[in-house]
Order: sequence, then structure tokens, then C-alpha cells
Amino acid sequence: MSSRCNLRFLIPGLALLLGGVPSVLAVWPQPQQIRNSAERYSLSARAFLFKHADVSAVRSGCDVLDQAFTRYFTLIFPESGGGGTGDTGAALINTLLHCCVYMHSWNLILNISGLESLSQLVEQDDYGAYYINKTEIEDFPRFQFRGLLLDTSRHYLPLQAILKTLDAMAYSKLNVFHWHIVDDPSFPYQSRKYPDLSKKGAYHPFTHIYTQTDVRRVIEHARLRGIRVLAEFDSPGHTQSWGNGQPSLLTPCYRGDVPSGTYGPVNPILDSTYVFMANLLKEVTSVFPDSYIHLGGDEVDFSCWKSNPDIKAFMKKMGFGSDFTKLESFYMQNIVNISTMLNRSSVVWQDVFDYHEINRPRYVVEVWKWGCYLCEVRRVTKAGLKVILASPWYLDLPGPTHDWARYYNVRPLAFKGTEEQKKLVIGGEVCMWGEYVDATNLSPRLWPRACAAAERLWSDEVQTSSVDQAFPRLTDFRCRLLRRGIQAEPLYVGHCKNEYQGI
Amino acid sequence: MSSRCNLRFLIPGLALLLGGVPSVLAVWPQPQQIRNSAERYSLSARAFLFKHADVSAVRSGCDVLDQAFTRYFTLIFPESGGGGTGDTGAALINTLLHCCVYMHSWNLILNISGLESLSQLVEQDDYGAYYINKTEIEDFPRFQFRGLLLDTSRHYLPLQAILKTLDAMAYSKLNVFHWHIVDDPSFPYQSRKYPDLSKKGAYHPFTHIYTQTDVRRVIEHARLRGIRVLAEFDSPGHTQSWGNGQPSLLTPCYRGDVPSGTYGPVNPILDSTYVFMANLLKEVTSVFPDSYIHLGGDEVDFSCWKSNPDIKAFMKKMGFGSDFTKLESFYMQNIVNISTMLNRSSVVWQDVFDYHEINRPRYVVEVWKWGCYLCEVRRVTKAGLKVILASPWYLDLPGPTHDWARYYNVRPLAFKGTEEQKKLVIGGEVCMWGEYVDATNLSPRLWPRACAAAERLWSDEVQTSSVDQAFPRLTDFRCRLLRRGIQAEPLYVGHCKNEYQGI
Repeated sequence: MSSRCNLRFLIPGLALLLGGVPSVLAVWPQPQQIRNSAERYSLSARAFLFKHADVSAVRSGCDVLDQAFTRYFTLIFPESGGGGTGDTGAALINTLLHCCVYMHSWNLILNISGLESLSQLVEQDDYGAYYINKTEIEDFPRFQFRGLLLDTSRHYLPLQAILKTLDAMAYSKLNVFHWHIVDDPSFPYQSRKYPDLSKKGAYHPFTHIYTQTDVRRVIEHARLRGIRVLAEFDSPGHTQSWGNGQPSLLTPCYRGDVPSGTYGPVNPILDSTYVFMANLLKEVTSVFPDSYIHLGGDEVDFSCWKSNPDIKAFMKKMGFGSDFTKLESFYMQNIVNISTMLNRSSVVWQDVFDYHEINRPRYVVEVWKWGCYLCEVRRVTKAGLKVILASPWYLDLPGPTHDWARYYNVRPLAFKGTEEQKKLVIGGEVCMWGEYVDATNLSPRLWPRACAAAERLWSDEVQTSSVDQAFPRLTDFRCRLLRRGIQAEPLYVGHCKNEYQGI
Repeated sequence: MSSRCNLRFLIPGLALLLGGVPSVLAVWPQPQQIRNSAERYSLSARAFLFKHADVSAVRSGCDVLDQAFTRYFTLIFPESGGGGTGDTGAALINTLLHCCVYMHSWNLILNISGLESLSQLVEQDDYGAYYINKTEIEDFPRFQFRGLLLDTSRHYLPLQAILKTLDAMAYSKLNVFHWHIVDDPSFPYQSRKYPDLSKKGAYHPFTHIYTQTDVRRVIEHARLRGIRVLAEFDSPGHTQSWGNGQPSLLTPCYRGDVPSGTYGPVNPILDSTYVFMANLLKEVTSVFPDSYIHLGGDEVDFSCWKSNPDIKAFMKKMGFGSDFTKLESFYMQNIVNISTMLNRSSVVWQDVFDYHEINRPRYVVEVWKWGCYLCEVRRVTKAGLKVILASPWYLDLPGPTHDWARYYNVRPLAFKGTEEQKKLVIGGEVCMWGEYVDATNLSPRLWPRACAAAERLWSDEVQTSSVDQAFPRLTDFRCRLLRRGIQAEPLYVGHCKNEYQGI
């Protein structure tokens, strides 16, 4: 996964201008190597075009690149309507995208990331003329998994809000959209197999759901931007809304000897539960093509299980004693097995790892709890399992914008461990939970704070250890986000040439 | 200022429906008296009209009311395009706006507030049909001054962002827009007399300024909504941007015996300073009609004054010793005198009061410092001066949305003092400073948290002492704000029938 991408600009036939290196040479996140020069070339939107390198195995017809060319042409020249993928014109920018030769998913991302870097290097002078300084970049991401979680259950997020987030993720080179699509409060995923889940479990059966078409649109929008979509169907806890449309799925809670009328986590002792989960996950894996699926497993409240006589009998039969973590592990083992049969790698929240110390199945552990999160990373990697780190990047709770420095200063590998252990840290993820967040405040709460995590996950840690050096670059990048229509809040006093116009 | 407004709905000829009192009878802020009944009347957008009461001295032609009728017709019936002020139709809602008889500013506000209450009582049933429960309201504001400060210097706010804020203020019955229009970082006010101030002091001389037309538009938009515009030209500190366009206004700082090239607060020892300030304030009072003007006076850094030999000589001559608070008081006294000559009441930040213990001029003191702010309120009222309380309502620093409860629990009169002292507390104000705020995050940071302060300033404190009782009403009011296009963030998990569509 360390395939490198060289990006050089060869610009024959363009006037070389006098000029210096701009004060802020902002590529965010910082490339592994970037060499600027004072040589400045002017760019003409009429003559500019993207061309596949002669050495590239990819030709026109690769939709991801073709569409990226069109998109980035418009991002570079916002005044122009589009175009830029034809093969006429006086000047060429010959993007030597070596990585293009291999079209599997990771390299694809690198290609798009190269276009993003290129687009960030184009500046406008005081007269509005576009130019680029001669630049050589060698780049690759430090971590392969650079995620962002959205929670569409606590508040419904309209499709447009998700698509906009994907746009901004691509600009920041985040490459995994972790879709925490359902949870206790609502079930907006419209299942083909179990339509009652959203019909009875969504906030509204028509206006507050994601249809199959919506989901496809999200996945396609993400794919074209080099972003994977990791769907999470969290169980056995966080499933209150599931119970509305799937009777007998949840555990009936008891008050003394009688059912209290309330329900707890998924009932782990019924065969019907596993039939349902297998059917649901089979559908989910047919809809979401990513090789990972997130199975949740966090924060299971055992009190309802404890109250239920059938569960207690089962515990006894299984020899679990009074240790309900064993019951959860039993359930999760079954769900992970289903996922494995469906040819998916499972991701689970750290609770699952913590509860299950022997014969753990192979899963990726997402570390989310606060405290010594690197201690947990160390434990998980010591057990030979892969880790995604989320703890330090819970951005849903608002803080002052300058909190970005806290997110920036995270050191994901600063734990005692072998090289093998470090390699098991596949990346990290920004979490935007939905208790206090919906479409009204999602964007300014995410951006630019999430960019700090994005650079930490992409760039070399030593080269990007200074908050002071990052500040002007991030300020500049935030203005670029505004110009691209992302409602990113300000870092501090000041202004952008193009202020936010979305009021 | 305690003029009361009775609002009763007489609805002849309308079908009386079976129905109950809706679970949340949300009028926000809570009226002084509200009596609901289960009698429900259906409303037809085709037949509905506003009519002046027979006892009202106001007839058509009062633009504030005529335009408010049109506006509230559309707010009540969003599907209808407009209209509703004609005099035909089968049914009447006869709004008995007694207060209408007197058209001075405070009563005007009450009238509009009555329309706002009415609009909040109209509900739609499951079939979309409009109805209103028979309701009797007697209402008046607890405090006359219910302000909201926007800072357009640290970040420029586009005109549209200000107008939207005024809309939301009217919905919340906030009635003073405190425009902190200039400060250190930029001077966006385009002065007729001193055009260089914005030309050289704004972030950009064309895109980041408020022209005279812009300012008139803000004042008119506010007036039509019963909102006063209190302009602040803060000096002698917070004036760095002024110096760009007005040479010799600021104090040259010294390093040893030589000027350092940097500048400090306004130079208080030059006649030219007072000529300039008199001219500027004369223009300002001709542009802003409100009887109050805010003169600032906060956070003056004395280090530059201390370094300047001319200032030191002046201090000696005046017998100020080394007490620079006396120099600031000397300056503020002169500025307050200018304002008095211009027939304006001055508002100043508490620093001015704190520094000047004898022979204080008559001004209104705005209390902004944290700590025992009620101690300060007590001191100011003991000195016989009016107070505006801002300390507990600094909303610019983000907090979790549930901070609203903190703003709600403020008790502005909970200090030991006489009845006379309490009457001197004319109100309070929400402050939205601009360090971390611009058009990208202004609305969700303000709303609905500012609504908590709005209710505290309008409603009876005893009747509105419970956060738990306020929560469902505020949740409901926040959905109403969304429906009206205000980007108000969520209080907690849940949804609105009409989600925010502004993405």
C-alpha cells in the first residue's frame, strides 16, 4: 500500500514569467516531498488540458479519471464552465501519473490526490491571471485508511449534505466515508428485504430515508472521488429503531417476572435473529461494494439482558455464568462469521476486542474511547489485529476552532511496540456524531477542523510537527474550501478573497 | 415602558372544530399571560385577513404594520404567495392591538410582537389544514432593551447575513441590533466625510465594506421589524484599522526615545482628534437615527501611551500622575460630551465606569466582564446609571448546544438593591464577537442559543424558571425557525417536519 505517485508538471509552450514563490505554498495535506521553484508559468483556461502520460496504461474511458479531469478543470478555472478534456490546444500539462498504470483502488486514489495537489498549486495574480510555479511533488499517504464518520440516525442528513461532505473529503484527501447509517433514534436505510425497518423505524417513511437510489448515488459520488464507503450496521446495542419494523428482534426487558413493555439490545439467543442479520447483511454487502463492513458492537447495556429469564437460562446453558460480556462476544462472533461468509472484513468498535480475550476472530478494531487510547492501540496491535484510531478526533462536540491544533498534534504511532505493530495501525478517522449535529451545522463543525486530522493521516509527521507552520497553510486552504462552496468556519480574525456566499 | 398589549382572536364565521390543546403550545418567548382553550378554529389562507381594530388610531398607511401584515401572512401560510391585507373575504381575524393607538417606538414593537405570537399559534393538522386554538394573551416585555451584538470587523459579514439575523431576532422578540461595526482588524463602514477610513482600513475597499445604501437597508429592515439599530464606534482602543485612513489619529508608540513605527490607541491629547471624532460622530448620528450611540471605551492598552513623551508631558500638565485611567476618562468624557451635543444617549463598556469614579457623565453602562457580573450591575445602579447586561451571554465561543440552559438560567436582577436600582437594569444583550465567526457559522452558533436569552429578557422569570419545561417549547420553536429559513442548530436528537434546506 505504499505505492508512490510522482507528479511533475511539464508545460511546453507556456510563457515563463518573472515571479517568486508565493508566500503560502499551500498544498493541504502537506505532500511527502515538494520542491517549489520561482519559475512561474501562466495558465490559460482556453489552452489548458489534461492528457494521459505516454507511459500510462490508462486511456480515455477510465471514468474516474475522465470525470476527475472535468471536475478539476472547473475547480482550477472556476470562471470557465467546464470542458478541458479535449485533445486540442496549444499547451499541455502532462501529468505524469505513474500510478495510473495500476487501476486497483488504492492507486486510483493517489491519482485523484495528484489532481487535487495540482489544483491547489494554481494561483491567480492581482489581475486574475492564472499561474503555477514550477513544482515537483513526490507523494503518498502515510496511512491507507483516512476516514470520516457521519451519523445519519440521531439526525437525518439530506443527501446533499452527504455529497458536499464527500466533496470536502476529497479536497482534504480523506478516503473512507464511514456511514453510521442507523442507530437507536431512527433507521433511515430503506431495505429491499425488510422495508418495514425504515417504514416504521425512520423519522418519516418518505422524507427521512435513504432509498436504494440515494445509497447508490452516495457510493458513486464517493467512488469518483477515490473514496470508499464503509457502511455500519451497529448491533446488538444501538438498535432501538430496528425493533419497530422487526418484531421479536430486540430483547424484551422484564420488571420482576413480567415483561415491562420496553426492549433492550438485539436478542442474541434466537435463531431468528441470526437469520434476519444474515439476510440484512447479505443485502447490505450487495449494496455496498467495499471489502470492509462495520458491525458496531459498542456500548451494549446489559441491564435488559439481565432482566430476561430466557436470556438467563441461555447464559446458564452456555456456562457464561453472570458474565454478559461473554454473551455479547457470542453474538458478535456469530455476526463476524456471517460477514466473513459474505466475503467481508469486519470492523468493530473496541468494546468487542476488550470483551473477548481468547480466540478472537479476525477483525479490524476501531479505538474510540478516551483516556490512554494509545495503550489500547498497543494492546490491539499486540494481539495482531489491525487498528483504526478515532478517539482523539471526535469533532461532534463543538470547541473553539483553534481546537484544530489539538487534532493536529495527535501522534498515532507514539506507543511502545514493534515495527509489525505499527504497521497494523492502518489509519484513523474523524467522527461526527449526530446528537447535536444536522444539516444546519455539519459543515462549519467539520471544516476546517477535520483537515487537521486529514494532514496528520496523510503527511510525514516530522515535516508537519509545527502548528505555527501549519496555521497559514490551513488558513489558505480554508479559503480555498470556501471558494469551492464548502461552508468551512474561520480559524481566526481575517478574510478570504472569496467569502462564503451560501447565506 | 410597561405599556401592555392585549391580543385576542375573534373569529366570526369560522367553523369550530373538535380538538384539543396541542401538546406543545409554543409561543417563544413565553407571554406574560396565555390562556389556551380546546376550541379550535380552522383558518383559510383565501379568507384570512388582518384588520385594524375599530378602537385603533392606526389605519392603513402605517408602513410598519402594513408590511408586517404582509410578512406574517406569508409566515403563517407559507404555501401562499402573499396578499392578505385586502378588506374582502368571508372571515376576519380581528387583532385587537390596543397598543397600536400610540405609535412611538416601544408600542410599535409590541404590535409586531403580537403578530409574532399569533403566527406561532397557527398550526397545521396531519392533512395540512391550518387551525388555531382559541387563545387569550396578555403580553409585554420584562426588559425594554433586548439586544444582539454582531461584530463586522474581525470578520466581514455580508449584508444578507445581517438581514437574516434581524429576521431571526424579530421571531425571538429581540429588539436592539448592536452593530459593532468597526474594530482593530478592519473598518468596513464607508464614511461620507472620511472615505479613506474604509478605503484603507477595510479588508477590501469594495467587497468588504458597508456603503451608505447598505447601512440604510439594515436600518430599514430592522425598523420594519421593530428593531432599533445601536451603532458602536469603539474608541480609544480597538482602533488599529482607523489609523490607515486617518493619519495622526493614533498614538505613535516609542521604543526608548524614538518612535517604533507602531501605533496605539487614539491620541487623546490632540485637538485634531476631537475635531475628527466630532465630525465622524455627527455623520454617524445623521445615518443612525436611534437615540443611543455606543462609544466603546473597553480594553485600552496603556503601554503605548506610557511610551510616548508627548503623552507623558500631557499627563504631567493635567496632574494625572501615572494613572492612565484618568487619561482614558478624560478622553471618554470628551467623546460623551460630543455625543450629548449631538442629542444622543451614550452607551459605554463597563471599563469606562470602573475607571471614573467621580463626576461621571450620564451614560448607560454595558457590563461585559465575567466573574461577579451582578456585583458590577449593583455598583452601576447604585451610582444611578442604567445598565445593559452582556456578561453571561457571550455566545461567540462555541459550546454544546445544551449550553442554552446556562443562558436561560441567568437571573439579571438577582442582586441586592433597591427597587430603583432594579429599574435601572434596562435589559441585556447577546454578544457574537467575530474572532471565530463569519457567515459560515454565524446562524447555527446564534440560533437557537440566543433564544434562551431572548426569553429571559422578555418573559416573567418565575413562570419560566424551568429548563425542562422550556426544552420542548424551544425544540418546537427551533423547528419553526428552520421552516422560516433560519439555520438554527438542533438542541438534541430528533427531527423537524421541515428540515433545513439551505445546503
